[in-house]
Amino acid sequence: MENESSTVQPAALDLRLALQNKLNHLTKPVGSLGLLENLAIQIGMIQNTLNPQVIKPHVLVFAGDHGAANDGVSAYPQAVTWQMVENFLQGGAAINVLARANGLQLKVIDAGVNHEFFPMPDLISKKMAHGTASFVHGPAMTTDAAEMASMRGAAVVERVSDDGCNLIVFGEMGIGNTASAALLMHYFTGLPLDDCIGRGTGLDDAGLARKRALLHQAVQHGGAVKTPLQALAQYGGFEIAMMAGGMLAAARLRAIIVVDGFISTAAMLVAHALQPNVLQYAVFAHTSGEQGHAAMLRYLHAVPLLNLQMRLGEGTGGVMAVPIIESALRLLNQMATFKSATVSTTLES
Amino acid sequence: MENESSTVQPAALDLRLALQNKLNHLTKPVGSLGLLENLAIQIGMIQNTLNPQVIKPHVLVFAGDHGAANDGVSAYPQAVTWQMVENFLQGGAAINVLARANGLQLKVIDAGVNHEFFPMPDLISKKMAHGTASFVHGPAMTTDAAEMASMRGAAVVERVSDDGCNLIVFGEMGIGNTASAALLMHYFTGLPLDDCIGRGTGLDDAGLARKRALLHQAVQHGGAVKTPLQALAQYGGFEIAMMAGGMLAAARLRAIIVVDGFISTAAMLVAHALQPNVLQYAVFAHTSGEQGHAAMLRYLHAVPLLNLQMRLGEGTGGVMAVPIIESALRLLNQMATFKSATVSTTLES
Repeated sequence: MENESSTVQPAALDLRLALQNKLNHLTKPVGSLGLLENLAIQIGMIQNTLNPQVIKPHVLVFAGDHGAANDGVSAYPQAVTWQMVENFLQGGAAINVLARANGLQLKVIDAGVNHEFFPMPDLISKKMAHGTASFVHGPAMTTDAAEMASMRGAAVVERVSDDGCNLIVFGEMGIGNTASAALLMHYFTGLPLDDCIGRGTGLDDAGLARKRALLHQAVQHGGAVKTPLQALAQYGGFEIAMMAGGMLAAARLRAIIVVDGFISTAAMLVAHALQPNVLQYAVFAHTSGEQGHAAMLRYLHAVPLLNLQMRLGEGTGGVMAVPIIESALRLLNQMATFKSATVSTTLES
Repeated sequence: MENESSTVQPAALDLRLALQNKLNHLTKPVGSLGLLENLAIQIGMIQNTLNPQVIKPHVLVFAGDHGAANDGVSAYPQAVTWQMVENFLQGGAAINVLARANGLQLKVIDAGVNHEFFPMPDLISKKMAHGTASFVHGPAMTTDAAEMASMRGAAVVERVSDDGCNLIVFGEMGIGNTASAALLMHYFTGLPLDDCIGRGTGLDDAGLARKRALLHQAVQHGGAVKTPLQALAQYGGFEIAMMAGGMLAAARLRAIIVVDGFISTAAMLVAHALQPNVLQYAVFAHTSGEQGHAAMLRYLHAVPLLNLQMRLGEGTGGVMAVPIIESALRLLNQMATFKSATVSTTLES
C-alpha cells in the first residue's frame, strides 16, 4: 500500500519550543488557554511555521455500501446510504448545515454506493463497486481493491489540496459501517470484540445482540489476516479505505487531518498502522456517543476537543471542531504580548 | 434586590414536545445530535418559538478591583486589572481575538476598577468605586452598593438588548476575583472552603496556602450573613454583582445567558439564589481548569458544552461556545425532514 517515496514525514517537532515561547509572551497567564495552546503548537509544527493558519477548510464525506447491511447489522436499510447521499447533494443533511455554519466547503465522494448517481458539482465519483461483499461471510474486498480504494482516496485529497485547502475533515456515510469499524477496532487494538460493538444509528437490544452474533461470525473468517492491508480488505468498506488513504495523503501534504467519530477514527487506525507519523497531523474532533469510540481514542492517545454526545457521523463532529482550531491559531497570531500591551507579569513589576 | 415586578418568568416549557418532535423528523437518527438537540430545545423555549435564532451576540466583560488583591490572594498585582482593561480596549487580549473570530461584539464595563479611564467607544462606565474593601477584613461593600451594582449591570444588559442583541456572554476581569468567587461558592453550595479555592491565574503552592489562610480569615467575618444580597456584599466584587444583576435582566428579557468560567458561574449562583428560574436561560459554556468549577457546575446541575482546560476568564470560554449554539439552531431550522428528502426511516420502508 505504501512505497518508499510515500512515507509520512514527522511534523516540524523542533519548532515546539519556539511556539511555546511565543504563547508564553501573550497577555494571559502561562498555559491558561489549555487545549487551545496545544492545538496552536501542533498546527504550527504541521505547517512548519510560527504563524499557522487554516485555508479553505473542506469536509470530505466518503460514502460506501456494505454487503453486511443485508445481513442485518444496522437499524436502517442499505438504500438509506444513497438516499442520504442525495440529501447531501441537495444541501439538507446535518453536515450541509454545519459545514455552512462553520465555513467549510463540502464534497461527497461516491466510494462504492449501491446506486448510480447523476453527475453533480459536489459529487466526486470514485466508485469501486456497488458495495462490498459481506464481511460476515468472508473478505469484504480483495487486497488489490483495498489498495486501489486507498489510492483513490489519496487522489481526492490531492485534488482539494491543489485548490489550496490545508484542513480536511474526514466524514462518511454508509449503512453498516459501524460494524466494519468495530471489526477494524478489534483487530488493531486487540480489545474484546463486544467492547468494540455499539448501537450504531440506534439498534435496540435485540438488534445489538444480532449485530454481535454476526460480527463474531465475521472474525471467524479473519483468522488469516496478518497485515493492515489484509485487515482493511477483510473487514473494511470502500469509504473507510479511501479515508485511510486520504489521511495518509493529507499528512504527506502537511495538511491538518480532522478526525470525526467512530468510523473516521477506525480509518485513522488503519492509516496509523501503515504510517505511525500520520498521528502528528491528526486533530481528534470529539468523543462520539458510539460505544467503543472512547477506547479507540485512548488506544491512539488522542485527546479529543469536544464531547457533545453526537453519534451521527457524516463529519458532523469534525466540522464542529473547526471554529476551535481557527480560534486557537488566531490567538497565537493576533494576541498582544505583555511587552507590547505594557501589562505587568509579576507582583514585583 | 428584586421587587415583585422583576420576577424572572419560566421559559416556554410547554414548547418542549413540539421542539423535540421537530428534531425527530429531521434526516438523522433520533437523538444523534446529542447536546446540540438539548440546546436547540432550550433556546426554543427561551425564545418561545420553534425557529429560534441568535441575533447580534455580545460578550460583556465586567471589570472590577478587589481590596483583597492587596492582601496577596493573587499571583498578579492589582494594577493588572486596569492594564488588561486597556488591552481589551486596544483589541489585543484573548477575548478580543476570540470575539472577532466567533462573530461577537465586545463591550467592557468599568464596574469598579482602581483607575481612571479615558472615554472609549467600547468602554461603558458604571464605576462604583476604585475597588472594593478587602473581604479578608470585613464586608467587601455595603448591601446598598451590592444592590446598586446589580441594577447597573441590569442597565448594561438592557442597553445591548435594546440594540437587538439576544445572546450575552458574561465575562470578567479583576485581580483577586477567583478568591471572591470561592467565598461565594462556599456560602451558596455549602461545600468545604478548601474545595472551593484554586490557583487562579497561577499561584504556586506557597501562594495557594496563603490564599487559603486569607479566605479562612474572610469567612470568620461573614458569620452574620443571612441573605444572598448580604453574601454578595460580604464576599463579592462590583463586577460579580453587576454580572448577577445583568443575568437576571437577561432572563427577564428572554435573552440567552452564556455563562463563562469560575467567576461567571459564581455570579450565576447569586442570581440563582435570588431567582431560581434564571437557570432556564443559562447555557454553561465550559468547565474551567480552575479547581472548584466542576463542583460549582454540579451544584447547579449544569451540563457544560466544552472542556478545553481553559482558565483565563474574560468570557473566553463563553465565546468558544457561541458557534456551537449557532450550529444547534441552524440544524433545527435548516435540515431537511425524512419526508422532504425521501429518506427511509425503517427497515420496512
